[in-house]
Amino acid sequence: MITIGLDMMGGDYAPLEAVKGAAAFLADNAAETMLVLIGDEEKITTVVKNNPLPRAQYTIVHAPQIIEMHEHPTKALKEKQASSIAVGFQLLATGKIDAFISAGNTGAMMVGALFSIKTIEGVLRPTIGAYMPRENGSLGLLVDVGLNADCKPENLNQFATLGSLFAEHILKIKKPKTGLVNLGEEEGKGNLLAQAAYPLLKENTHINFVGNIEGRDILIDKADVMVCDGFTGNVVLKLAESIYDIVKRRNIEDEHFDRFNFETYGGVPVLGVAKPVIIGHGISGSTAFKNMINIACRMVTTDLSGKIKASFE
Amino acid sequence: MITIGLDMMGGDYAPLEAVKGAAAFLADNAAETMLVLIGDEEKITTVVKNNPLPRAQYTIVHAPQIIEMHEHPTKALKEKQASSIAVGFQLLATGKIDAFISAGNTGAMMVGALFSIKTIEGVLRPTIGAYMPRENGSLGLLVDVGLNADCKPENLNQFATLGSLFAEHILKIKKPKTGLVNLGEEEGKGNLLAQAAYPLLKENTHINFVGNIEGRDILIDKADVMVCDGFTGNVVLKLAESIYDIVKRRNIEDEHFDRFNFETYGGVPVLGVAKPVIIGHGISGSTAFKNMINIACRMVTTDLSGKIKASFE
Repeated sequence: MITIGLDMMGGDYAPLEAVKGAAAFLADNAAETMLVLIGDEEKITTVVKNNPLPRAQYTIVHAPQIIEMHEHPTKALKEKQASSIAVGFQLLATGKIDAFISAGNTGAMMVGALFSIKTIEGVLRPTIGAYMPRENGSLGLLVDVGLNADCKPENLNQFATLGSLFAEHILKIKKPKTGLVNLGEEEGKGNLLAQAAYPLLKENTHINFVGNIEGRDILIDKADVMVCDGFTGNVVLKLAESIYDIVKRRNIEDEHFDRFNFETYGGVPVLGVAKPVIIGHGISGSTAFKNMINIACRMVTTDLSGKIKASFE
Repeated sequence: MITIGLDMMGGDYAPLEAVKGAAAFLADNAAETMLVLIGDEEKITTVVKNNPLPRAQYTIVHAPQIIEMHEHPTKALKEKQASSIAVGFQLLATGKIDAFISAGNTGAMMVGALFSIKTIEGVLRPTIGAYMPRENGSLGLLVDVGLNADCKPENLNQFATLGSLFAEHILKIKKPKTGLVNLGEEEGKGNLLAQAAYPLLKENTHINFVGNIEGRDILIDKADVMVCDGFTGNVVLKLAESIYDIVKRRNIEDEHFDRFNFETYGGVPVLGVAKPVIIGHGISGSTAFKNMINIACRMVTTDLSGKIKASFE
């Protein structure tokens, strides 16, 4: 039995979309998963009444406080011990849930992940990636997308390992091609960071390094895992997100560009912390929640954390 | 009379597209411009025979050598003194032409600009920007897009001044809104570079600073001049270029996305060098050449170099 903790108070449409997402997930998945719905019990119960969930597959853990989106992460987590995020991390740390998902305050989720779960030994900096839709229908992973604005070469090298393990076990890509985002293709190109990271990636036996990739390669399938500092990655991600908005404003109907709707992906895990933690987009809808629960399950069943641990030994 | 030097041997379609572009430009512009066509005289003459130019508005300066795209810039410039690029810079340095345009070897153009024309006093690093098409039909300027992979805060601050002057005098945008590309909107966000650049931009009296802009703001008109290091800018530019390719592959017909065809823009000037120099895309077609000649003319008539000089005094 896998037990997934879900913050019901996080996100702009809480708790309705989280409940709907849970229902959609449970409809597809038989008895092997238990969902722990964390948040205001009364509010959750009311919503569940209208959106029923199979009784044997969920429990509610009451957490009366909410960390709002604008609150200071560390301060809020400390002062709101009964918040859904704080309670979620307590459950995760004590092994009562196997994974924790929230679309709430990103900063509070990060602080919770780093301090109550801790990083895997050897991982210098955990990272967050984002999916990049490619024309062949698959998803690539861009990593980091904002958690680490300033990076050292070894950070990028570790992001490559973390991203490759995620791509292999969660996205099910065999020997994921791993590329270094750069301003030119040739070895030796780049800013100082990319120049210094290249030889480390080349020597990294945990990854299938395919060399430098350029901006024009991010939306094709030249590499499955695309490594960069969090500043560059964040600018790229938000630019890619804005393409969907432009396409919609211009009334363009296109299957491929529909996949630029990043809201449906929900979020990707914090890679490098000891247990599965997924931070969702604030505007996550039910599909996003369903997808996040699915990914959390896969992280638990494949023991991604254990595999990361082994790679960093 | 404005005299514009045009490298006829640069670019993938030399000299045909350059001649066509010159013809298109001269068809719109009366007697005030003289074009100096630099390159292999025989080849140019042959092409001009089939694509006639008004006899009073051009001369040919014979330059029998060509610097190929793959050649080492410094070495090639030194060894090929009779190449179209070397001759172009000789003409520019000695005042025989007012501006020089080439779609040839970018590195050789940069070396030529920096060493035969030199930077304007006070400019630490010249920069190259790129247009960003926005939905309202206007163009923004992203600067730097690859010339300066690693930057110091003062470099970004100078790019802001250089980009603003270009936007004001060449793109004719009054008090161009100037933004710092960053991973968040709030002051204090960013990597170390952006954090340190922000206060400099805020204090810069030569620009109309509007604060941080995010990746999602690059393709809208939140800022007219968008400042970043050349690594980030290069990745963004090439990603934006690839959007056009995807749109075309998917047979999407859309006026706005047609403006993502960066080939038509031709190129933007090297900002910060003492005289107007424009480096074009290798695949420049006739429209690109025409646009580059137009911009070069505007740079001369508005005395952009003089205005930059005054801002850095």
